Amino acid sequence: MTVNNFTKKHKVTVIGSGNWGTTVAKLVAENCAEHPDTFEKDVQMWVYEENVTLPKDSKHFDASIGEQPQKLTHILNTYHENVKYLPGIPLPHNLVANPSLVDAVKDSSILIFNLPHEFIGNICRQIKDHIAPYARGISCIKGVSVTDDKIELICNYVSDALNIYCGALSGANIASEIANEQWCETTIAYNTPLVDRRDENGKPVVTGESNDHTKQLTPLPLDYPPLDHNEWSLLFSRPYFTVSMVSDIVGVSLAGALKNIVAIACGYVEGHGWNMTAKTAVMRRGMQEIIRFANEFFPGQIEPRTFWEESAGWGDMIVSCTSARNWRCSKLAVERNLPIEEVEKTELNGQKLQGISTTREVSSFLRAKGAEERYPVFMAVERIIDQEIKVEEIPKLFK
Amino acid sequence: MTVNNFTKKHKVTVIGSGNWGTTVAKLVAENCAEHPDTFEKDVQMWVYEENVTLPKDSKHFDASIGEQPQKLTHILNTYHENVKYLPGIPLPHNLVANPSLVDAVKDSSILIFNLPHEFIGNICRQIKDHIAPYARGISCIKGVSVTDDKIELICNYVSDALNIYCGALSGANIASEIANEQWCETTIAYNTPLVDRRDENGKPVVTGESNDHTKQLTPLPLDYPPLDHNEWSLLFSRPYFTVSMVSDIVGVSLAGALKNIVAIACGYVEGHGWNMTAKTAVMRRGMQEIIRFANEFFPGQIEPRTFWEESAGWGDMIVSCTSARNWRCSKLAVERNLPIEEVEKTELNGQKLQGISTTREVSSFLRAKGAEERYPVFMAVERIIDQEIKVEEIPKLFK
Repeated sequence: MTVNNFTKKHKVTVIGSGNWGTTVAKLVAENCAEHPDTFEKDVQMWVYEENVTLPKDSKHFDASIGEQPQKLTHILNTYHENVKYLPGIPLPHNLVANPSLVDAVKDSSILIFNLPHEFIGNICRQIKDHIAPYARGISCIKGVSVTDDKIELICNYVSDALNIYCGALSGANIASEIANEQWCETTIAYNTPLVDRRDENGKPVVTGESNDHTKQLTPLPLDYPPLDHNEWSLLFSRPYFTVSMVSDIVGVSLAGALKNIVAIACGYVEGHGWNMTAKTAVMRRGMQEIIRFANEFFPGQIEPRTFWEESAGWGDMIVSCTSARNWRCSKLAVERNLPIEEVEKTELNGQKLQGISTTREVSSFLRAKGAEERYPVFMAVERIIDQEIKVEEIPKLFK
Repeated sequence: MTVNNFTKKHKVTVIGSGNWGTTVAKLVAENCAEHPDTFEKDVQMWVYEENVTLPKDSKHFDASIGEQPQKLTHILNTYHENVKYLPGIPLPHNLVANPSLVDAVKDSSILIFNLPHEFIGNICRQIKDHIAPYARGISCIKGVSVTDDKIELICNYVSDALNIYCGALSGANIASEIANEQWCETTIAYNTPLVDRRDENGKPVVTGESNDHTKQLTPLPLDYPPLDHNEWSLLFSRPYFTVSMVSDIVGVSLAGALKNIVAIACGYVEGHGWNMTAKTAVMRRGMQEIIRFANEFFPGQIEPRTFWEESAGWGDMIVSCTSARNWRCSKLAVERNLPIEEVEKTELNGQKLQGISTTREVSSFLRAKGAEERYPVFMAVERIIDQEIKVEEIPKLFK
């Protein structure tokens, strides 16, 4: 690490403290402690406050408190463990739980968004007038917002809502494994805004000639260390978490969202007793449709190699279609001969399967665009969910 | 199917009758029976003759013969089952087992090579002077022939040895599943020789200007139906076997051979208790090295989309790294704390693991070229096989 002379350091806030949010907060806090020249040591984590009762067999049980409910932020800051959403994982002591969203984001130059995507609109409204104007974001939220006539990336929604720049993190990642420091990879897409780019001497590179819309952003002040691929990599890379930096936010976001449709298809195929070769054929065709979709609806905005070579592309596809939740529930739906929505109710403690809503939204969008014929996998999944067609018909449909 | 007026039809010979050879012969024979305008009904299958004793509980057991050994070709042609290498699968009656290699290939316009790759040299020497000069081939043999200073595709070896043109078939295929008519996909690479190309009216398109080396081949006579992507697809496609035709024989051959190195790496990683996310990371990096290898040693001769989009590319990679033999044996090697060669001896009935020899040959080739540093996955696998490094070191090696 080279010593630099910037008078400011990046202050980091993680917005969200669920299973994935706490996991990311843990590794980011580890890095902030290790790189004090670039980052402030303490990392803020906004926690949606709730009361938690520690059971008697908890190692944090305190007889003097007994079974009285305690605030989750208090537990986090006292015992350095998220007993509710990431139990058993010791958290770094420089990770500070904060129940006030507005206070947690105050003066932060780095905002990491990591909460269910239905909450993002409300969160942005609450923090809009309280963030640093030069703040930069990374969205760890997979998903796109789709209506019949529009599809929007979550990270672009954040950028627009807050008038900052926001990139995206996505990859073949399972939170509990990363929390346990089992090695995997991820992809971060961040297309450094023109106003933030600096030359070898640390001077801004912005010129009067460009029409890049990011020129309208408030630049990151020059007394901060730069915030480009190197620094994002420094913030997220751990020995157990290898980061690949790209600039393609569209490819990373679409791959992360659309692969859930394919994962549902694979669960059906596997539940039906078909083999890995058949499942692989579905994955391959699903990937072709994701790339076709990206080229058709975001022309000129993707790098095909994101899908082919990145963890956020084929890597995430493989893990999602062999180990993750959408796959598991659609497999159970076949095995139990139930609609997948019934499995969702019994298996997910009230949480929703992202893949079902993505399938319905994307199918509806494709119908509105008259593009159904070019997307036989995507369209078939909705019809299988609705039990209009049987899994056995897949090879015929995919001709 | 359109009716055509060609006076000849394609006669098909499958060379090889093991598990995969018999499976391919089965589906090809099914198609020859269904498309009598294009193919002769009877398909020849060369069988390395051996004596087989039918046990008493075999449904083909004949008390009048008892436990006397019978010739495998006799059993095949009498009971239409390959009791030794594909037991339990009824074969089409138009599949004719022939113990004479020279007789089996006589007058055939289509030769399908499907036997262990160490036998191909000898086979080519035996048939060279007995095949039709205009015969065309498809190699179903995965693998490349590698020495320290040269790497050669099996299909190119066949082309050169016989002075014919030979393409390649490879994909996410498991013979026993296809024999049981479980759906999967494959890729056939066939770059139709210039002398065989015909225009819309069936006239040859060859002109005097080209320097395509295939101009020196004996053209397929015009009284035969053409032999281009459509006809190859007709010969191999079944409702349970979807064929994608490409022209990239280099990409298809390399992917089929090199993925075995990655499969061994994945078995080690999984045997070590690592998760799907770690295995996926190894697959992703392995695929990057395959593409790098193809571009470095076969410059300008591949289509990158073969690797990214075809069953022979990512499809085969996934199946090989989750279900197939190289993966299984290296996983067992870790679990039993044995060298993989020991597992090979006990698990494969004397057969050899293709992946081990490919790993050693490719590592040696890369060392001879001074290219080790660009191929950390390939090089690590040999060192893990030789127990010089531990699986735990993988993330560090791949930095």
